[in-house]
Amino acid sequence: MAGLELGAKDSGSVRKAGVHRGVAVLDFILRLVALIATLASAIAMGTTDESLPFFTQFIRFRAKYNDLPTFTFFVVANSIVSAYLVLSLALSIFHIIRSGAQSSRVVLIFFDTGMLALLTAGASAAAAIVYLAHKGNTRTNWFAICQQFNSFCERISGSLIGSFGGIIVFILLILMSSVTLSRRH
Amino acid sequence: MAGLELGAKDSGSVRKAGVHRGVAVLDFILRLVALIATLASAIAMGTTDESLPFFTQFIRFRAKYNDLPTFTFFVVANSIVSAYLVLSLALSIFHIIRSGAQSSRVVLIFFDTGMLALLTAGASAAAAIVYLAHKGNTRTNWFAICQQFNSFCERISGSLIGSFGGIIVFILLILMSSVTLSRRH
Repeated sequence: MAGLELGAKDSGSVRKAGVHRGVAVLDFILRLVALIATLASAIAMGTTDESLPFFTQFIRFRAKYNDLPTFTFFVVANSIVSAYLVLSLALSIFHIIRSGAQSSRVVLIFFDTGMLALLTAGASAAAAIVYLAHKGNTRTNWFAICQQFNSFCERISGSLIGSFGGIIVFILLILMSSVTLSRRH
Repeated sequence: MAGLELGAKDSGSVRKAGVHRGVAVLDFILRLVALIATLASAIAMGTTDESLPFFTQFIRFRAKYNDLPTFTFFVVANSIVSAYLVLSLALSIFHIIRSGAQSSRVVLIFFDTGMLALLTAGASAAAAIVYLAHKGNTRTNWFAICQQFNSFCERISGSLIGSFGGIIVFILLILMSSVTLSRRH
């Protein structure tokens, strides 16, 4: 009877460990997805450079991402988050092997939260400027620049997608980590 | 001997429950702080309205927060987060009373993370526009408007402080919740 109970408990904890391992593998995959998304965003924005076909003798009309400090911040934020994600893959692999680890999960939640804030800050600041570039603002006399720099605008708009995808993945990662922490026993 | 061990275990779990209760009270206080900060941000931005002392017969020079859609988003985001914080106070009180609750804590982490993202998005988008209003941008011919609208600019800059304070409090709240979840047993 005691042996039976022990056996039932064992199979239960084995199943639970299996679920934890599955979640850890999903965690690893999601981190890879976020890494690709943020890296693509950083590269797409960082290589944006459009020269207009007409130019005068002295001035060449040219639009680069670092004409606007906000876009520089966007590239820096996405690069930092990408670098963090590469490092966090190591911890993610550790969680696949040792699914019972707790304190490393708390550390991961903390840094994930910080990186979520950084990524959101970069993406939404850039989105505010992209919106302005498209629509302009008549009250402040800021004109839309997208009429002249068409491909520049398409490029900077597109590069936001990866960042916002990364934000969603980070929210999922934090949720998964906290669910795993609460189901530990 | 068994009784002694039981007694030791009991006093340990009582001490642990006491720590949990202390963390829950701190959680409640931090939520109140964040509520005041985000509400103050929303009100400060939402009531911004400057009329210049000179005006022509037909046009009166006036700057309001909703001249720029980003600032409207900022007010909406801060209001939503404030409303959420009021609701979450109820759950926080529940955690003070029942310090062993788990699933409600996971729900709280999830919504806290979402609200952190929303608040960061509003605050950093507004910060990007405030920066532009102060410095302007010569490459895109967007001129600084802060020379004309001095008190308007001071007001919108100041209203960012509450939001960024709220972001820091949310990161602390998520960290505290996850530590509590990991220390549950």
